[in-house]
Amino acid sequence: MSETIFSSFPTVKYEGPNSESELAYRFYDPERLVSGKPLKEHLRFAVAYWHSLAMMGGDPFGGQTIFRPWMAAGDPIAQAKVKADAAFELFRVLDLPFFCWHDADIAPAGDTLAETLKNFHAIVDYLEEKMQSYSTKLLWGTANLFSHPRFMAGASTNPDPEVFVWSAATVKNCMDATKRLGGSNYVLWGGREGYETLLNTDMKQELDQMGRFLSLVVDYKHKIGFEGQILIEPKPKEPTSHQYDFDVATVFGFLKRFDLENEVRVNIEANHATLAGHTFEHEIATAGGLGILGSLDINRGDALLGWDTDQFPNDLWTMTMSMYHVIKAGGLGQGGCNFDAKVRRQSFTPEDLIHAHVGGADLCARAFLTAARIIEDGRYDAMLAERYAGWQTEEGKAIVAGKYSLGELEERALAGGINPQPRSGRQETIENFLMRMIYSDKL
Amino acid sequence: MSETIFSSFPTVKYEGPNSESELAYRFYDPERLVSGKPLKEHLRFAVAYWHSLAMMGGDPFGGQTIFRPWMAAGDPIAQAKVKADAAFELFRVLDLPFFCWHDADIAPAGDTLAETLKNFHAIVDYLEEKMQSYSTKLLWGTANLFSHPRFMAGASTNPDPEVFVWSAATVKNCMDATKRLGGSNYVLWGGREGYETLLNTDMKQELDQMGRFLSLVVDYKHKIGFEGQILIEPKPKEPTSHQYDFDVATVFGFLKRFDLENEVRVNIEANHATLAGHTFEHEIATAGGLGILGSLDINRGDALLGWDTDQFPNDLWTMTMSMYHVIKAGGLGQGGCNFDAKVRRQSFTPEDLIHAHVGGADLCARAFLTAARIIEDGRYDAMLAERYAGWQTEEGKAIVAGKYSLGELEERALAGGINPQPRSGRQETIENFLMRMIYSDKL
Amino acid sequence: MSETIFSSFPTVKYEGPNSESELAYRFYDPERLVSGKPLKEHLRFAVAYWHSLAMMGGDPFGGQTIFRPWMAAGDPIAQAKVKADAAFELFRVLDLPFFCWHDADIAPAGDTLAETLKNFHAIVDYLEEKMQSYSTKLLWGTANLFSHPRFMAGASTNPDPEVFVWSAATVKNCMDATKRLGGSNYVLWGGREGYETLLNTDMKQELDQMGRFLSLVVDYKHKIGFEGQILIEPKPKEPTSHQYDFDVATVFGFLKRFDLENEVRVNIEANHATLAGHTFEHEIATAGGLGILGSLDINRGDALLGWDTDQFPNDLWTMTMSMYHVIKAGGLGQGGCNFDAKVRRQSFTPEDLIHAHVGGADLCARAFLTAARIIEDGRYDAMLAERYAGWQTEEGKAIVAGKYSLGELEERALAGGINPQPRSGRQETIENFLMRMIYSDKL
Amino acid sequence: MSETIFSSFPTVKYEGPNSESELAYRFYDPERLVSGKPLKEHLRFAVAYWHSLAMMGGDPFGGQTIFRPWMAAGDPIAQAKVKADAAFELFRVLDLPFFCWHDADIAPAGDTLAETLKNFHAIVDYLEEKMQSYSTKLLWGTANLFSHPRFMAGASTNPDPEVFVWSAATVKNCMDATKRLGGSNYVLWGGREGYETLLNTDMKQELDQMGRFLSLVVDYKHKIGFEGQILIEPKPKEPTSHQYDFDVATVFGFLKRFDLENEVRVNIEANHATLAGHTFEHEIATAGGLGILGSLDINRGDALLGWDTDQFPNDLWTMTMSMYHVIKAGGLGQGGCNFDAKVRRQSFTPEDLIHAHVGGADLCARAFLTAARIIEDGRYDAMLAERYAGWQTEEGKAIVAGKYSLGELEERALAGGINPQPRSGRQETIENFLMRMIYSDKL
Repeated sequence: MSETIFSSFPTVKYEGPNSESELAYRFYDPERLVSGKPLKEHLRFAVAYWHSLAMMGGDPFGGQTIFRPWMAAGDPIAQAKVKADAAFELFRVLDLPFFCWHDADIAPAGDTLAETLKNFHAIVDYLEEKMQSYSTKLLWGTANLFSHPRFMAGASTNPDPEVFVWSAATVKNCMDATKRLGGSNYVLWGGREGYETLLNTDMKQELDQMGRFLSLVVDYKHKIGFEGQILIEPKPKEPTSHQYDFDVATVFGFLKRFDLENEVRVNIEANHATLAGHTFEHEIATAGGLGILGSLDINRGDALLGWDTDQFPNDLWTMTMSMYHVIKAGGLGQGGCNFDAKVRRQSFTPEDLIHAHVGGADLCARAFLTAARIIEDGRYDAMLAERYAGWQTEEGKAIVAGKYSLGELEERALAGGINPQPRSGRQETIENFLMRMIYSDKL
Repeated sequence: MSETIFSSFPTVKYEGPNSESELAYRFYDPERLVSGKPLKEHLRFAVAYWHSLAMMGGDPFGGQTIFRPWMAAGDPIAQAKVKADAAFELFRVLDLPFFCWHDADIAPAGDTLAETLKNFHAIVDYLEEKMQSYSTKLLWGTANLFSHPRFMAGASTNPDPEVFVWSAATVKNCMDATKRLGGSNYVLWGGREGYETLLNTDMKQELDQMGRFLSLVVDYKHKIGFEGQILIEPKPKEPTSHQYDFDVATVFGFLKRFDLENEVRVNIEANHATLAGHTFEHEIATAGGLGILGSLDINRGDALLGWDTDQFPNDLWTMTMSMYHVIKAGGLGQGGCNFDAKVRRQSFTPEDLIHAHVGGADLCARAFLTAARIIEDGRYDAMLAERYAGWQTEEGKAIVAGKYSLGELEERALAGGINPQPRSGRQETIENFLMRMIYSDKL
Repeated sequence: MSETIFSSFPTVKYEGPNSESELAYRFYDPERLVSGKPLKEHLRFAVAYWHSLAMMGGDPFGGQTIFRPWMAAGDPIAQAKVKADAAFELFRVLDLPFFCWHDADIAPAGDTLAETLKNFHAIVDYLEEKMQSYSTKLLWGTANLFSHPRFMAGASTNPDPEVFVWSAATVKNCMDATKRLGGSNYVLWGGREGYETLLNTDMKQELDQMGRFLSLVVDYKHKIGFEGQILIEPKPKEPTSHQYDFDVATVFGFLKRFDLENEVRVNIEANHATLAGHTFEHEIATAGGLGILGSLDINRGDALLGWDTDQFPNDLWTMTMSMYHVIKAGGLGQGGCNFDAKVRRQSFTPEDLIHAHVGGADLCARAFLTAARIIEDGRYDAMLAERYAGWQTEEGKAIVAGKYSLGELEERALAGGINPQPRSGRQETIENFLMRMIYSDKL
Repeated sequence: MSETIFSSFPTVKYEGPNSESELAYRFYDPERLVSGKPLKEHLRFAVAYWHSLAMMGGDPFGGQTIFRPWMAAGDPIAQAKVKADAAFELFRVLDLPFFCWHDADIAPAGDTLAETLKNFHAIVDYLEEKMQSYSTKLLWGTANLFSHPRFMAGASTNPDPEVFVWSAATVKNCMDATKRLGGSNYVLWGGREGYETLLNTDMKQELDQMGRFLSLVVDYKHKIGFEGQILIEPKPKEPTSHQYDFDVATVFGFLKRFDLENEVRVNIEANHATLAGHTFEHEIATAGGLGILGSLDINRGDALLGWDTDQFPNDLWTMTMSMYHVIKAGGLGQGGCNFDAKVRRQSFTPEDLIHAHVGGADLCARAFLTAARIIEDGRYDAMLAERYAGWQTEEGKAIVAGKYSLGELEERALAGGINPQPRSGRQETIENFLMRMIYSDKL
């Protein structure tokens, strides 16, 4: 392996909150035990190959600003290996336990499907090899079914069945590779599964196609004995005008329609949540309640901008409440926290990339530790329990269990002369309490 | 019946597109046959009691600007009858076939539940009587479970079970009244079923409560033999920060979860669609595809404002494409087009109210006629059919039917050496075609 | 003075960050010296009469939830005094140095203008009296020219000149009262100065009216020798579709057009900033740069909702950076921090109101202390200075000073063979640094 | 000149509203006289070189879908000429009178500034030559100061003075070329003049730089005797988080600050208006009222998407009211209507491009004709005049003219016992009237 642009950086270490180092973890102490499990196993951080190794800094009004050695002209397979070498050195520097990829991030396309798959497996071989000398594991693999022009009108939802077939072949190979590399999950993001304009779209037809595709994926998982989770990543729009996997609730309805709600879970991204009009914590709590919380894509959007900015997170409040709902849902299990975040196009140096991940991991770790502390403290949960105490009475439980009909409830209402009295929702008091917990160094 | 503020207005008539009258229908010719059915039976227009009779013109920064005789001090029951007299005169002037109400619009609250229900039934009696001398029918009834302070934290989703019970009693009586008045539908709008802040909310608990409530409503419908449709009206937020019936897709998932997807349909409102990030036509097409299209609330929002403006519609393009998807979904059946629209608070005169409805009905009628013409013309549907032609081949059908596994599709891809070629989505060409159809007087 | 609903609450005290009291200031230590001045003189907190004493909890879908003794039926002047008694007790409990009012908050309207003014001055007398036994001072007064139906089409911008005249008379009296009560500022919020629809609006005419009105206000200030600042409060919309005082930059252009940029400054509200598509800190920095920063309205919006939620602040990041720009602009001078924030309608108890203010004041105080610490630390400002160092060279200064023409700059470019090289914007590194400063207890 | 991809298309002709041709103008009759001037001189349509010749169909999630001969590998200058040949053939097909360019659209960058300018002037020579054999004229030229990485932190507002100098040299040459090609306007769009994050930005410094730059441009215009207008194109954000030329009102304040309000006007883009929270017609009316309306960029956004979609227009209502305000402002003068609109990335065929322009031009022409008809009809303007009639009285004029002080107005109010009465704003009636005018074929 040649020297990479990350080789000269020392591995970032946990140094505690008072560290004076520019590059150190202050809160992310991977071995710290929380509820009997090391922090790193709760959070299962991953580095995203696409943003960190493949992203070039372009935006709709400007071109490449990030130039890495492996982006220069050269033999595509050789350059893909240079990229992989750098990737694993980056993982080493960051000391985060997982990574994630799309097929197109790691290997070059060929002129035909066969050649593309050949390239892909050649690089998967190479990654497998690298993984023997590094400790980084695969959190998930996925297929890029949105960048190439053939996908411009969708992948499984394309008006052209040949694109469906191409996509099927691609996903099969990506699933094979994910299994081979020991991946914990396989993710589908339907970035073009939706429409640019409803005017030229047969939505019913397209949703039937998408349902079939997902069923095939689940069948194949069982066939090959892949033990990871199958995950859908909701997003409401962009680049589409409407994406079918709009949000967690929409995905749930889709899964129910195709009897897949016990087979497939969601990978929730913060910025996708806000684009759909939800907070990150809302989407997590929704998935938790429906039993389909799978994994997280960590980033942040800009509330004043209408597109996916995929910035590294810095909002401690939101992240803490998100982690609170993760813990309440039973944790992330086989899922993890993937940094689906990119440095700004002006932040083109390797240092910028490392700073970004260190800051993001520290924020998440601090948020998780605080969330655990809030739960352990108990006062917050007690406020909630008190608010809903009426539903824990015999009568309350009987109502939810369906023991009374509408008519019987009317009788009870009239007989009892009920006159429900307002009680304060105490929002500001709760917010004050949480401010004291969240904005505190004491962890 | 005393003279009302609408009594002096003559009934508005269809006079054709070239009418010079200020108040005339130019496109809404109720008896015109379209596909063998009079236009009025396709559209089934309704006047909303709340906006037209009860709305006072207040907004968050200012008070009442609309003063009607029945809003003045006086005996509440007597005033409710004055209001009803005026209502039916308004219906006569507009000559629209239906009306809709909330319990709170038509009758005054009492000091207790029993008294409130007594008031309600007294006015329902009165309405029944009025309906014998007027031709206006009831499109739907509903209960206002959001205005009174007891509902400030929700109705069926309230942390206090007593509010659930109160709501159950109220809905039962509203359903009874709807049946008695021959209503075609019963609607639930969960205006406070959601949260102001997730911080004080047990979302899982609340959704269980809401599922139970809806199941009770469906059971009661069957018990009393009500033959109308049960409808949920989606809205994403406002006054809540999050409303559980976010949009059509979310409601579908909720119905599936509680096995109610064959019992309950949706009443889609244009402005609620846009608040959720969707077009009106998207929501209609979604419901059509899922088989749950029930009825429409006609209005428009302001794309630059973030709240429900409930304006009368004036966007011919959107309304035409909405009607296109209504027809494609098989029409509105027992549903209809309810003007859930209010005049601006500066438009406080009776004339303003009449103008608003006449303009709105004409726009919808023109839109429907154009949509029917687009379908009859056939060229637009042919463009869509051509785009998806591949899925009508044997092979295409076999794929959607699940006849091939992922592995078999890969084999076919590699054996066939497929290389799907881009085809133009022709958006601009389609838009030009539709502009010519939509912005044309020729109907 | 009778017992008020706040009388039983002890005055909230500074107890330091580790206080276990539910109601205590943890960061707001009014006497703490920062740059030689007590914290209370930097922040100049004010309680808003309208939200805290007059707001009833209604929203567009529901009525009153907050019931205070002075809102019950009774003699209006007597009730206004009960309200004032409670107000000053609230100020005592919170121990914040200022308050603010609209005429309509403190005194009841009469049947005529003369009677309205008479009522107003009667209560101003009463407030003057109260202010002798309490230490609370007046930060600013203002006129409510938006709630009454006469203002439904604007105040100074009304199509009816009589409304302009009425508004002029009202503002004159409010200015008189503000001066008499020792107010530091007089504020104009043009809540209806804009349009519901451009379709019925002569914008040019209306802006001429508004310019004249403001000029009259400034003339009157000088005439009576009022030494406070005249402030405009920008807001982009709501309840209007467009408000003329859209944002700070728009107000600046308006002031320039009427030669008032040295006479009038801005009162910037956080939630108004976000409704206009800006951050709070952006608006503060803009006003600072233009020399028109006057005062702040402290609150927060909900980034996912499209209306003015006026919540109490809880975002430490935004508030810290806002305070940073306040300090950079030279501080608030005669202005202050007015809590233009209201408790949620479910938070109807007196306790909720007190909690809300205590949490808000603490957040602002902590933010200010951190901002001062960031500046004192110097590293952040050094990063900025380094980024712009080129403009501090002779050449850089000469360019901005206009010493070279376009042609001369071309010559220099070609002669020098310049080829500017990208430099990292270091956004993530800066964010990490600020996270460490902002989310730290160490103050 | 070699055969181009547009050569086989016949020139599109005006054929009237009933034409059955797929490609024909139905409303755009260039020679039709309106108020004594041919329609083409009112509208002055232009084709944008960037969207129509240089745009490749990429978006943030996918690459090139539009492949034209001149985009293939080859000698850059030769390919630029192939592009120019195609451009003029496209102009011939569309028969629109003007075109617009950025330097970077027409000529390839060189390795140095000198070489870049050399390339540029070589192609300007070639365009000059082409313009002798075609009738198309130049509406405006502009410099692309946003795509190259050197501009990633701004052009005139860059933290690096060398970028300012480079930009100055570039603009000088673009102005020279615009003059030489007989351009009617020179446009500045500050696509990177703003910030990605306020955290690393000295906004005051940057605005001073930008003011200087614009002053230099105006000086240079006078120096070379360029008789066209200097135009700024407002946009609020994207790709920036904040762009300094936020909207028309902001630009006006900026111009006033640097005493340039009589030297510079605005080029208003529809989609930029909506991104700023305004309608297109609002921005036009604002500029008209301030006397700075310069020219229009014709396109449309998608109200549900938060980025610049630059679609071809199809909203007849908005465009008609926009044209109404253009006429009220005295017309476009030296400005025009530039199609700053791009076909969708799925619309990659030459036919799509032609359809898009034909539909867009027809929509604008129809809108203009309708607007002229509304004005000629007079009823709409009469409704407005009646609403503001009070301001046309002696008293009304005296108030706006400043003949009364605040105190005098109070006296008049009290003496007159005024009690202004609400009058209906008649929004719905006006909308109905306009629907009848706008959605009518009768032109």
